[in-house]
Amino acid sequence: MTDKSEIEEGLTFAPQFGADGLITAVATDAKTGEVLMVAHMNAEAVAKTIETGEAWYYSRSRKQLWKKGETSGHVQRVAELRVDCDQDAVWLRVEQVGRGACHTGRRSCFYRAVPLGKAGAVRLEFRNADKAFDPQAVYNKPTK
Amino acid sequence: MTDKSEIEEGLTFAPQFGADGLITAVATDAKTGEVLMVAHMNAEAVAKTIETGEAWYYSRSRKQLWKKGETSGHVQRVAELRVDCDQDAVWLRVEQVGRGACHTGRRSCFYRAVPLGKAGAVRLEFRNADKAFDPQAVYNKPTK
Repeated sequence: MTDKSEIEEGLTFAPQFGADGLITAVATDAKTGEVLMVAHMNAEAVAKTIETGEAWYYSRSRKQLWKKGETSGHVQRVAELRVDCDQDAVWLRVEQVGRGACHTGRRSCFYRAVPLGKAGAVRLEFRNADKAFDPQAVYNKPTK
Repeated sequence: MTDKSEIEEGLTFAPQFGADGLITAVATDAKTGEVLMVAHMNAEAVAKTIETGEAWYYSRSRKQLWKKGETSGHVQRVAELRVDCDQDAVWLRVEQVGRGACHTGRRSCFYRAVPLGKAGAVRLEFRNADKAFDPQAVYNKPTK
């Protein structure tokens, strides 16, 4: 489906995957509105998320489908899934199971702020950057 | 800067623009946490957003820098700007000036929900889809 008005005003779900086969996915905490992470989905990740009610993504670096939390146990239960006007981005309102969404051990991937009003080189400032879990312990489990 | 640990744990702002020169930008309402829109920024859009405290993006379809609200007057005042772990996405918590962020006339671009738990073809459902403003009147102003 490529008709612009149908994509924007219609009720047919027709995700507009890019040349790389992906759309952008934003996950927010369903209760607080905090943005937990930004990732990508291919068609299979979209289908599995809809079918299971849990978040699946596509890893651009590993070039594979992944279920959020498959290693860490930190799955995301989807309270609501929305699509944007041009259907190239989705918004997941989720219940984040476990202590965090970020592979660095934080609850959110967005743990640094960019100060505003300055030109030139920018120094970031930590925000809610305490580790919620130990990524070494969670991701580097001994193999069976 | 390409050192992974410095990108993730350091305080140097080093946005990791993709092959297309862009990073992903998510704008949420600073008060409600609602996702208003997902867009993209090139280096100039990032710099102008930091300098001015108002949101600038890069339009992939028009292939040009744009200040949000330059036509509609619906500018976004940035309350906080954050960057994610791998510095390829930013989150803007904004005060949305005017009645909406979406070019279709809605407050948010995410005015349709995708029902969960079903396989196969999906019918969207409207959510908060009432027009907050008339896009014809706002965008198609008579030329001087």
